[in-house]
Amino acid sequence: MATAASPHSLMLKTPSTAAAAGSRTAFPVATRLPATAPKPISIKCAAATTQVQDPRPPAPAAAQERIFNFAAGPAVLPEKVLLKAQSELYVWRESGMSVMEMSHRGKDFTSIIQKAESDLRALLEIPPEYAVLFLQGGATTQFAAVPLNLCHPDDSVDYIVTGSWGDKAFKEAQKYCKAKVVWSGKAEKYTKIPSFEDVQQDPDAKFLHICANETIHGVEFKDYPVPKNKGGILVADMSSNFCSKPVDVSKFGVIYAGAQKNVGPSGVTIVIIRKDLIGNAQGITPVMLDYKIQAENASLYNTPPCYGIYMCGLVFEDLLEQGGLKEVEKKNKKKAELLYRAFDESKGFYRCPVEPSVRSLMNVPFTLEKSELEAEFIKEAAKEKMVQLKGHRSVGGMRASIYNAMPLAGVEKLVAFMRDFQARHA
Amino acid sequence: MATAASPHSLMLKTPSTAAAAGSRTAFPVATRLPATAPKPISIKCAAATTQVQDPRPPAPAAAQERIFNFAAGPAVLPEKVLLKAQSELYVWRESGMSVMEMSHRGKDFTSIIQKAESDLRALLEIPPEYAVLFLQGGATTQFAAVPLNLCHPDDSVDYIVTGSWGDKAFKEAQKYCKAKVVWSGKAEKYTKIPSFEDVQQDPDAKFLHICANETIHGVEFKDYPVPKNKGGILVADMSSNFCSKPVDVSKFGVIYAGAQKNVGPSGVTIVIIRKDLIGNAQGITPVMLDYKIQAENASLYNTPPCYGIYMCGLVFEDLLEQGGLKEVEKKNKKKAELLYRAFDESKGFYRCPVEPSVRSLMNVPFTLEKSELEAEFIKEAAKEKMVQLKGHRSVGGMRASIYNAMPLAGVEKLVAFMRDFQARHA
Repeated sequence: MATAASPHSLMLKTPSTAAAAGSRTAFPVATRLPATAPKPISIKCAAATTQVQDPRPPAPAAAQERIFNFAAGPAVLPEKVLLKAQSELYVWRESGMSVMEMSHRGKDFTSIIQKAESDLRALLEIPPEYAVLFLQGGATTQFAAVPLNLCHPDDSVDYIVTGSWGDKAFKEAQKYCKAKVVWSGKAEKYTKIPSFEDVQQDPDAKFLHICANETIHGVEFKDYPVPKNKGGILVADMSSNFCSKPVDVSKFGVIYAGAQKNVGPSGVTIVIIRKDLIGNAQGITPVMLDYKIQAENASLYNTPPCYGIYMCGLVFEDLLEQGGLKEVEKKNKKKAELLYRAFDESKGFYRCPVEPSVRSLMNVPFTLEKSELEAEFIKEAAKEKMVQLKGHRSVGGMRASIYNAMPLAGVEKLVAFMRDFQARHA
Repeated sequence: MATAASPHSLMLKTPSTAAAAGSRTAFPVATRLPATAPKPISIKCAAATTQVQDPRPPAPAAAQERIFNFAAGPAVLPEKVLLKAQSELYVWRESGMSVMEMSHRGKDFTSIIQKAESDLRALLEIPPEYAVLFLQGGATTQFAAVPLNLCHPDDSVDYIVTGSWGDKAFKEAQKYCKAKVVWSGKAEKYTKIPSFEDVQQDPDAKFLHICANETIHGVEFKDYPVPKNKGGILVADMSSNFCSKPVDVSKFGVIYAGAQKNVGPSGVTIVIIRKDLIGNAQGITPVMLDYKIQAENASLYNTPPCYGIYMCGLVFEDLLEQGGLKEVEKKNKKKAELLYRAFDESKGFYRCPVEPSVRSLMNVPFTLEKSELEAEFIKEAAKEKMVQLKGHRSVGGMRASIYNAMPLAGVEKLVAFMRDFQARHA
């Protein structure tokens, strides 16, 4: 075969790199063997000898101070979780390797993904007739996967659009079915949730879709519309309030969420779906977007985002240790109330555009009466180690995202800063 | 709106959790402020005070010994890279946060993804007329994305199938175009690469697709077929030999690879595509699979797998420090030759099914003459801290994956063990 070199010719072309490799791996030369060992020799695990020195990172310098991160996602993670992850990054338990190096089909990672799922099921009290999938591609991939799996091209589906994300979900769905907007908050700049009686649902729709919390506009469903379609199927994008409070999963056909707000790093998307809705994907559905394939393979049809799933598992553990989602919701309400009250008590210096009864507990957009001061506000806050307070580029102003992992102290500090800033600029 | 509670009623329902939150965040009570501070107060960054104690993980116990991991992917990563990642996990440089917590649009993550791309461009000498994308979903998602972006339903495309992965790519493509297998190694159990003269290519095909290295069967293209189609477009899945040796990118229209073999953790998929091939996606293409959308947004159309991209960047840095891909290839050839020679010198005790001229430098499948000893071989190797040597469930036998990050010492130890095992069981 003229098209390929033989291993022998490769051998001749290859200079020895043993020394380089040896030094790179800090492997004792003594354990290296001649390429042709004449007879059996005893073997000790030289690998162990690579770990006599302390492989820990250096003690943190002043530069390792943590700051308060109000980013909308990726967002702050619990310090406990980060420190646990750091302690296990190089070698996980007795495995001899990092979680990032584990076969996704080996017993160690199997235990990690199974515990992550069972802890999530405990947190949300997910009924057994629902499947839990750990996928990739973000909620934006689910904007396509949901209609591709739940309906055919001629089927109609209903979307309640309360912000940019619901609108994106609707637009993507138009590729795969007859998607219809049954209510839109656009005319009111996405500051409201409709009174459900005012929404004219199509009884022939395959599902009703909502975005449970709009990350950019800060409007959040406080309860959920009853789907009037024959199947009674409600689908919710819960990316930015997932696991921030208890949810009655049995009210939904599908819940999906990107992990990077409340439960982990970006790169993991969680889908909770009623099992009877699985198995009807359109023929054009990419195999990776087919819920049936993913459910049959327990999210392991191909290699899943293993490290991200591991991180989500650590967060689920932490949420359970905090007492579960009822306790987490109490803390989130406490934080949100502090912040919203500060607006209301500022006599108009700070303004939140969102209708009070549907203000998000997670994403808090606000503006200044004197908008020319907003850049200064963000700059001074950053000096005080409170960052990522700039509003989304599509709406401007400011936004404080106060997810599960934002400590009460962070919100207290922000509120104190706001009062101080107002006093100095009123 | 009867459907939502007002914030005031929420306030009344909410017990104080300041103490709990305070203890959870180790935040000094003194810095906590009354909800209604009467007048401006000075603010020091209390956040800093949370870091007086050493947040490092405990020193490693014996359990933190590293072992030799021959997994096919996710696979071994360079120790240097893991230790660097561990040292930065809790706080990245001066950012005050973990890479996992960074906004994907902030200046810190922007510097991380831009350096990852420029280092990858340097490693592979990627010409400026090629775009580099950091995506999600694994190569399996690209099995759909490639035909969705490069051709229309009536277009024909050619696939050379040299193993399971090429076959999966072909089957997925059938959903989106007229895919044809122009050569298959299946009858010979995927142990060969064709002589390119023997492959009858369709001049009207939109592209010719190959899998450059078959992870399961261990066959690797040593050079590449010249596409005979009008566009001259060659597409390659390089998942399991990406960045293991220099590649002339200009010979390809598209190169794609899952990161979890040679360059990072699972959850990142790298696509290198000639820019003139971007912008022709079929209407049914999910927005996340549309190369135009991803290229126009520099892989930031939605939140990318930030931490995985950061890890890939650390690996690219390490590969450059090693002297680039020419040096890396030398080390890989040295390791592979040691192992293949051991088979050839075992007088048939160990057998490699793959045709010698196309044996993979990355994935080395082998069997025992006495197949009843294979379970024992795997068990004894694991006792010697060499793990993941079991062959893929679809082919059985054994497989040693010896990616870039597998030290020469690991292969030397395996070869010594093989000789010892043979002497004891011959």
